[in-house]
Amino acid sequence: MDDSLSVEFEASLPAWLVEELPVLVAGGPVETAEDRVALANRLADRNWRAGNGGPFAAVVVDAASGELVSVGVNVVLATGLSSVHAEVMALSLAQRRVGRWDLGADGADLELVVNWRPCVMCYGATMWSGVRSLAIAGEGAEVEDLTGFDEGPMPEDWAGEFERRGIRVSVGVGHDDAIEVFRAFGASDAVVYNARGAGGV
Amino acid sequence: MDDSLSVEFEASLPAWLVEELPVLVAGGPVETAEDRVALANRLADRNWRAGNGGPFAAVVVDAASGELVSVGVNVVLATGLSSVHAEVMALSLAQRRVGRWDLGADGADLELVVNWRPCVMCYGATMWSGVRSLAIAGEGAEVEDLTGFDEGPMPEDWAGEFERRGIRVSVGVGHDDAIEVFRAFGASDAVVYNARGAGGV
Repeated sequence: MDDSLSVEFEASLPAWLVEELPVLVAGGPVETAEDRVALANRLADRNWRAGNGGPFAAVVVDAASGELVSVGVNVVLATGLSSVHAEVMALSLAQRRVGRWDLGADGADLELVVNWRPCVMCYGATMWSGVRSLAIAGEGAEVEDLTGFDEGPMPEDWAGEFERRGIRVSVGVGHDDAIEVFRAFGASDAVVYNARGAGGV
Repeated sequence: MDDSLSVEFEASLPAWLVEELPVLVAGGPVETAEDRVALANRLADRNWRAGNGGPFAAVVVDAASGELVSVGVNVVLATGLSSVHAEVMALSLAQRRVGRWDLGADGADLELVVNWRPCVMCYGATMWSGVRSLAIAGEGAEVEDLTGFDEGPMPEDWAGEFERRGIRVSVGVGHDDAIEVFRAFGASDAVVYNARGAGGV
């Protein structure tokens, strides 16, 4: 290495997802809770098979209309950055699209949809992003049991902490399909990228 | 807005810090705990005064030698991205510099030094980064009381959760200077960027 320190970093969606974006947008609003989670489940499954990172995907939509604002997948392996989980990608790309860090400014009601409960880092990232609601396919330890990922220590009343900050939480739509994605990942020899965490090394 | 979704995002250190980096590197290793936290406190104070984001800074050093691996400051306001807290910047830039997401690979012993206990998002970001130790100037509610920032719900045994994952924690060096930075910020009319959190709006 030379002596200079890094002054910037960047993170991109994988090429296969960039290619699919025009098709997703052309499909129009994602109106139902079922379709929103199904999209997250599908992208999560493709993501780990493509080798970009873990079996996780997230989308940001307008809660009422279902208009797609951003999509994200976990790109830890593709980028070499441990913080670019699916939620951080989706939230950051949504912020790039709307041009501000507060996704809830001016009465905007945006929803983050994820194929499972966020890890402790993404729990905080969601809290600070300005989204007004979170929809997830499930919240239990199945993800850790099936995949080996450490999700970190979450507060007991994690959903209540969201609600008290004006973020609605809904859980369970698309649950069985989410489990199938984790099961397939766990049965593979894909990389678990926890750094010496409970599921790592 | 046009119909296209964003496919990448980037985050940079502010210009004043980029300009200072060669001087910092030329200064050689930051050998003592006192000097490491003093650097974080100084950068935190300059950062909010420059309008880049909150009064927070972080550095990654080789724990034994003190060699500087990266510096980060909170650039939420400068970038329009809610997740680029000081810790995320420092960890991501360290990962860019060493060329891998796991800062603890191959026996590396890197330390993250921050001017206060990380918020819940950065708590997780630190956990997944591969650093082997965390040094902070303080951990109490003073930061929220003095600045108005919401730090999120942390687990009761937050330090134990780090230790169980092989991350040593040390608290308290540089405490009074850190408090002075928060006090000055709190007495100003600088922006608190929590999205409708306890300290926001």
